[in-house]
Amino acid sequence: MSKLWGGRFSKKTDKLVEEFSKSIHYDNKLAEYDIWGSMIHVGALFKSRYLTRDDANKLLVGLKEIADELDPNKFIYDPNCEDIHTDIQNKLQNKVGDLGLKLHTARSRNDQVVFATKFYCKFKIKEIQEAIGELVHTINTLAEENKGIIIPGFTHLQHAQPVYLKDYLWAYIEMLKRDTHRLQYIAENLKITMGAGALAGTPLDPNYGQGIKEILTGKVSELLQKFKIEAVSNSLDTVSDRDFIIEIIAALSIVAMHLSRLSEDLILWTTKEFDFIELDEAFCTGSSLMPQKKNPDVLELVRGYTGRLYGNLVSVLTMMKGLPLTYNRDMQLDKEPLFNSFEIVSKELKVLKGLIATIKFNEKKIAGHLEDESLYATDLVYYLVQKGVSFKQAHTIIGELISYSLNNDIKIKDVPEDILKEKFSDKIIKKEFNQLFNAKKSVDSKLSVKRDYDLNIFKTQE
Amino acid sequence: MSKLWGGRFSKKTDKLVEEFSKSIHYDNKLAEYDIWGSMIHVGALFKSRYLTRDDANKLLVGLKEIADELDPNKFIYDPNCEDIHTDIQNKLQNKVGDLGLKLHTARSRNDQVVFATKFYCKFKIKEIQEAIGELVHTINTLAEENKGIIIPGFTHLQHAQPVYLKDYLWAYIEMLKRDTHRLQYIAENLKITMGAGALAGTPLDPNYGQGIKEILTGKVSELLQKFKIEAVSNSLDTVSDRDFIIEIIAALSIVAMHLSRLSEDLILWTTKEFDFIELDEAFCTGSSLMPQKKNPDVLELVRGYTGRLYGNLVSVLTMMKGLPLTYNRDMQLDKEPLFNSFEIVSKELKVLKGLIATIKFNEKKIAGHLEDESLYATDLVYYLVQKGVSFKQAHTIIGELISYSLNNDIKIKDVPEDILKEKFSDKIIKKEFNQLFNAKKSVDSKLSVKRDYDLNIFKTQE
Amino acid sequence: MSKLWGGRFSKKTDKLVEEFSKSIHYDNKLAEYDIWGSMIHVGALFKSRYLTRDDANKLLVGLKEIADELDPNKFIYDPNCEDIHTDIQNKLQNKVGDLGLKLHTARSRNDQVVFATKFYCKFKIKEIQEAIGELVHTINTLAEENKGIIIPGFTHLQHAQPVYLKDYLWAYIEMLKRDTHRLQYIAENLKITMGAGALAGTPLDPNYGQGIKEILTGKVSELLQKFKIEAVSNSLDTVSDRDFIIEIIAALSIVAMHLSRLSEDLILWTTKEFDFIELDEAFCTGSSLMPQKKNPDVLELVRGYTGRLYGNLVSVLTMMKGLPLTYNRDMQLDKEPLFNSFEIVSKELKVLKGLIATIKFNEKKIAGHLEDESLYATDLVYYLVQKGVSFKQAHTIIGELISYSLNNDIKIKDVPEDILKEKFSDKIIKKEFNQLFNAKKSVDSKLSVKRDYDLNIFKTQE
Amino acid sequence: MSKLWGGRFSKKTDKLVEEFSKSIHYDNKLAEYDIWGSMIHVGALFKSRYLTRDDANKLLVGLKEIADELDPNKFIYDPNCEDIHTDIQNKLQNKVGDLGLKLHTARSRNDQVVFATKFYCKFKIKEIQEAIGELVHTINTLAEENKGIIIPGFTHLQHAQPVYLKDYLWAYIEMLKRDTHRLQYIAENLKITMGAGALAGTPLDPNYGQGIKEILTGKVSELLQKFKIEAVSNSLDTVSDRDFIIEIIAALSIVAMHLSRLSEDLILWTTKEFDFIELDEAFCTGSSLMPQKKNPDVLELVRGYTGRLYGNLVSVLTMMKGLPLTYNRDMQLDKEPLFNSFEIVSKELKVLKGLIATIKFNEKKIAGHLEDESLYATDLVYYLVQKGVSFKQAHTIIGELISYSLNNDIKIKDVPEDILKEKFSDKIIKKEFNQLFNAKKSVDSKLSVKRDYDLNIFKTQE
Repeated sequence: MSKLWGGRFSKKTDKLVEEFSKSIHYDNKLAEYDIWGSMIHVGALFKSRYLTRDDANKLLVGLKEIADELDPNKFIYDPNCEDIHTDIQNKLQNKVGDLGLKLHTARSRNDQVVFATKFYCKFKIKEIQEAIGELVHTINTLAEENKGIIIPGFTHLQHAQPVYLKDYLWAYIEMLKRDTHRLQYIAENLKITMGAGALAGTPLDPNYGQGIKEILTGKVSELLQKFKIEAVSNSLDTVSDRDFIIEIIAALSIVAMHLSRLSEDLILWTTKEFDFIELDEAFCTGSSLMPQKKNPDVLELVRGYTGRLYGNLVSVLTMMKGLPLTYNRDMQLDKEPLFNSFEIVSKELKVLKGLIATIKFNEKKIAGHLEDESLYATDLVYYLVQKGVSFKQAHTIIGELISYSLNNDIKIKDVPEDILKEKFSDKIIKKEFNQLFNAKKSVDSKLSVKRDYDLNIFKTQE
Repeated sequence: MSKLWGGRFSKKTDKLVEEFSKSIHYDNKLAEYDIWGSMIHVGALFKSRYLTRDDANKLLVGLKEIADELDPNKFIYDPNCEDIHTDIQNKLQNKVGDLGLKLHTARSRNDQVVFATKFYCKFKIKEIQEAIGELVHTINTLAEENKGIIIPGFTHLQHAQPVYLKDYLWAYIEMLKRDTHRLQYIAENLKITMGAGALAGTPLDPNYGQGIKEILTGKVSELLQKFKIEAVSNSLDTVSDRDFIIEIIAALSIVAMHLSRLSEDLILWTTKEFDFIELDEAFCTGSSLMPQKKNPDVLELVRGYTGRLYGNLVSVLTMMKGLPLTYNRDMQLDKEPLFNSFEIVSKELKVLKGLIATIKFNEKKIAGHLEDESLYATDLVYYLVQKGVSFKQAHTIIGELISYSLNNDIKIKDVPEDILKEKFSDKIIKKEFNQLFNAKKSVDSKLSVKRDYDLNIFKTQE
Repeated sequence: MSKLWGGRFSKKTDKLVEEFSKSIHYDNKLAEYDIWGSMIHVGALFKSRYLTRDDANKLLVGLKEIADELDPNKFIYDPNCEDIHTDIQNKLQNKVGDLGLKLHTARSRNDQVVFATKFYCKFKIKEIQEAIGELVHTINTLAEENKGIIIPGFTHLQHAQPVYLKDYLWAYIEMLKRDTHRLQYIAENLKITMGAGALAGTPLDPNYGQGIKEILTGKVSELLQKFKIEAVSNSLDTVSDRDFIIEIIAALSIVAMHLSRLSEDLILWTTKEFDFIELDEAFCTGSSLMPQKKNPDVLELVRGYTGRLYGNLVSVLTMMKGLPLTYNRDMQLDKEPLFNSFEIVSKELKVLKGLIATIKFNEKKIAGHLEDESLYATDLVYYLVQKGVSFKQAHTIIGELISYSLNNDIKIKDVPEDILKEKFSDKIIKKEFNQLFNAKKSVDSKLSVKRDYDLNIFKTQE
Repeated sequence: MSKLWGGRFSKKTDKLVEEFSKSIHYDNKLAEYDIWGSMIHVGALFKSRYLTRDDANKLLVGLKEIADELDPNKFIYDPNCEDIHTDIQNKLQNKVGDLGLKLHTARSRNDQVVFATKFYCKFKIKEIQEAIGELVHTINTLAEENKGIIIPGFTHLQHAQPVYLKDYLWAYIEMLKRDTHRLQYIAENLKITMGAGALAGTPLDPNYGQGIKEILTGKVSELLQKFKIEAVSNSLDTVSDRDFIIEIIAALSIVAMHLSRLSEDLILWTTKEFDFIELDEAFCTGSSLMPQKKNPDVLELVRGYTGRLYGNLVSVLTMMKGLPLTYNRDMQLDKEPLFNSFEIVSKELKVLKGLIATIKFNEKKIAGHLEDESLYATDLVYYLVQKGVSFKQAHTIIGELISYSLNNDIKIKDVPEDILKEKFSDKIIKKEFNQLFNAKKSVDSKLSVKRDYDLNIFKTQE
């Protein structure tokens, strides 16, 4: 296949080298974005008088035809091409003949790749944000439908204090809020530029926004209205920069980490021992040996994929370490980790949405767990504090009472009032005291939390 | 030393456990921020009537005294304490007696640690931004002082096209711009809250901003005006969240990556072979065996420390993977990587500033490098394009010309006009052609770059 | 402080550079190993006639004196020195005067650092292996003391089949066996060499083993008998190589990962919900807010520290990526991650040993968990297989039986024989069938496991 | 497609779940190894009388037929199957009918996957070792063909001392020696076992080696003679263990790191500035914009891929952190990083072999670099030491001489003898002194290196 370079070479590239350096098997994902970039470039060439209006229009028609043939499931790229940019160049030449040889005027793949990748990221971030929004909606629905449920809250995976299930689930929504906000920041700061050339700029007029509109129509013209295409500010930086890739994979890694925690909680809740929830069969798998098994494989895979995201992050960070300016071929290896990260997180969000929508809570079992007296120990402390005992003393007294209860195998509620008064604190009035072992009362006494539960951020991105 | 817990325990903690779980040898860095937090908490306790005005004032005086004794070089923490929070609690009790036992009312270390760490981060990010600003200033000064210099630009570490040294150095300023912008985003979204308790909130009034001002004076009152202290929105999330730590280390990792690239370039430029620059002796070190050595160790260490940053990032990411809600003790291990990352990047920025301020460019040597004809090959292509040759054809023609020049060991400038016309293109006029081998002309013909060189972002954070 | 280099420098090193490049605050750990190396080097200088016997002896006496002053808790290094090698050189000069200036003949720190670090590793690996051995002994004791206990085995954290607790605990011993074997491989392949110089070798006689014994006595002579000190084979590789650091941190990362899994299991077992075990109070900590808490902090920290190990590994791997030969200063940054990794894993092994030694199993609670009929589903399948049903059919039949039992809220044991026969398989004889719900019988029927439980590997390293 | 489980499920698995949990698109690489495992399992079932001789033979014939259809380029797996194990089970049923339902008797995929993956690794490690051996052979040939060449040796990328090119290249062979040795260790300790079941073992006879030979013939019988198939020692460990995956990726990461360093050196050597070597055009690529470019893309990609290896390592390490025993679905995610790591390193070794075989050294240019006097500074020091000056004094004197030479812009060779004697050392005899600036003499005076250059290790693995 014809390459975009080669004049000075008298030898053919070694087969192994071709296989080793090829990227078309993954960068074909950029086809659409590359075509748009080429169209805009045609506009710029026209504006700078490197192309006549007629030639420009012919090239645009040719590019439009290729774009129309794109279809994620049908598009056939030529696997013998070095990359998608070469493939599209060749396809264009097939359509418009030698005129196609003018398209690459004042353009370098270094710039072209950055353009297409950034454009791709703009769209993919949006997709992820939408999937986050849908997952959040599902979690919120689950929370609302079960808003009366109180569960034991855990610290150190030990019973701590009772909490509303809704607050628990909203903790995950808070995480996802930060995630979508972070992605929004990245998307907004992703500047799509043109004109860097290989590293030193080109002789073209840098005002892409203006005059090129005259010749560009249809979808690319809409894109130009929606996304600002800017002239490059520093061309050396532009072809050397992969910050946006790292930022995105880092943000997606945090999403994945959040989802791994959610999965862990659900895995625990679905054990025979916790038994807080029932997963739907459609979201579980079985065992080839043990017929009873109904395993939470989806959740385990979500947890495990976290490593893949972290690995992708390390991969790109390592690649960029210590690279001299400007473009080096190492940077081609940014795309697989990027694409893979988008893909994994996107799948995770979607499959979790389905799984969470079908969760059933075992209210009876959960109620049983709330009978554990230790969950109310802090309320007992506050009781004493309100009676004038200093906090640390009250903490010690209740600590000793718990110890007494364990050592004597007696429930706190069953400790006689005289012993409570004598051994622990004469301020304890048993009748009052025993009313403290009440989940609802305990939760409702926590006034410090403002529960600023607002889903607007998930809408504003649309 | 007295602990913040213990009533229910009848056995002493094992010595190994104390050593293993202790954090005071690193979290003593949080002392100042923890004291401010305690003062605000006193305000909240007063407002919610858990403390009388008199008691509140006594506690504030005691805390103020401890704050006054703080001095990074002199502050003596008690190494036997579990953590800095315990140490300050103890110090306070020494000052105000049993009244001190009330301070911890309706408070948990889970919340306290988050408060102090976030506050610390606000200040540290500012310091890093200032150090970035100073480094940028130094790079810009170097760029301005040498703005006439043109150097060979590289792609793939091969001669590509001539570029202005100033543009080259500004590529690094562009990176640092993104860095400071990213840190700014993190700082602005770092919400400092109170009232999460251990996980479930507390019985205290959540309106910290308001009534507590009445009792708080001096520095803490200034802080309250400068930083918004908010009531917690979701207490389970607050004690479970370490996103901000990951965001910061990720952002600092990108800074470190940028500095590693800058270092790599300078290391190359300082080799005998490149010889573009001379480093000052004060910023080099020698060899114990080879007396001639003047090594760029500073730059190598900056390059090498990148690994440390990446490692810190992996450390916290791994730690958080798959943790169930809410707080787990694993999370204590966030602080060393965080502190270490701030420290390394801060030192790097400062030492690079000094080193860069003293760089001398070897203009003569650089000029010699610019004589390489291959640097102008792209200009030769544009020449043909302007004569009407299509870009890809022109590219091929010049490629063949270069090949001819190499194979016949003849300079392009010395190829006779008839051969140029016959073998390559009859559009070539030798006189015009030979004028293209001119660095200044080459650089100035690149009109597409807008050089939007503005340092304002480094000022606005102040 | 006097440096090991400097003749060609007319300027003083910048303060920031000194602070930034200094390593004595961590490499002081190598003092002992560096002194031994210096002694052996004196032997080599004597052998190659660079030192008289008398001078050599004086140097050895001086070095011996410094060695005698070493004491991990007391040794005072000079924090103003660049590194421990400089410090020892200075200390030696203080003792023997100008004669000390001869010690560094034909020696470079590049080589010296590698020597000392490798020697250090040999000893530290041994320590880790011993700590592994002790932890294994403790686990095995726990396993033996409770060898009658059967627990529910888990896959996907769901009840799978009953297993012996002993086999469960031995799974961890198997992991630790691989760990110690892996460390043994590393230690055995750690070649301690001399003579690399800065990169190009030295003029000294390479036969260290032989003639130098004549002048070396005491501990260093014992070391020479125990450890082979070899002449360098390729000097460029020797000063460039940090494989051994990576290997060690990778091996320690796997140890840490194993311990994180053990911790996870114990954390789960100690929840209110599982309640398989009781941890000793001396190995737990409490809460400053919630007096009832007895948290498994030790286990959580062990789990969390895994991230630190992985981070250290990434740190050194990143540092080494793409470094040109030979020595580069980046490599100095290998030591903190190495030392830190040894330290963390060493502490983890020791504290876990203590914790595990005091674990109590709640046999009654565990017995209750074994009543879950689903644990025996596979045994029901084997029963049908033995009656001639093909495995996959049997699997399906029992799967349907479980489904029936769940949907009709009836225990399998209570399903009437006629229904069993009619709806599921006429080969089922209820009397036989009901005997299958027996943990001991189930476990003992698994003949395929050879239980090759041998602790010899932990002894042979001694 | 029929699954290996499902009896208890009344609902169909959700489509998203099927897509998300499927592994056949990558684990089809294990087809061959899985079939061998199934054959051995048939042998075991026969031996334990779960299969008649006749049935066993029919199954073996069926499996053999599937194996015969395997061809990396032609094999068609059913993409609707969950994994390759299910696919092969289905294919077998198509061939032998209901008899196929007996194959999975007393077997779990947990065990099956481990068996196939370990077997796969044995073969892949061998392939990598062979590719290493071939690369080493190529490097050695290059070294031998150019053994007379001396190059400047570098530390800190600064001129240090002259070294033989051969020694330089052998530094890389030393690294590759350690790599192959490390892989050998892993392969030898990779125990291939059977009988773990899902976690608890199976009722089958554990003596695989013996009686099953009776029924197994052909290739599988050869394999049984070559590789020891053992009974499982601890079944819980076997299904939980992924150490071997981590070990392999860690070892391959070190290989990749070594290759990144080799690439970095060659990239430097091929710059206009160093110009030590000429790469063959067949191993370079060009630029779409700049016609002169002949870029070392292969080397850059090798350098960049290091990140991918490190990322794969982090991916699996993270995945395994904190997983409870025994098998969890997360572990399925070990295979892509493993396969990818083998593939990348394999390609790197092969393409580098081709590239290195065609390298040409620019002897003239290299000779020019050797004229740098600073390369001989250490020889000047040794000269003074042999004249009785102590090493550190000599080091200082020569340092000052270099400083003098630089400041006065005079070559050391040209400093008059009287100045040498007066200002530096009266022991200097100019005639002797000037002869020290001799690369060959310098290199040959380094006696300490034993150059134990033996390629046997690369043969013994065959």
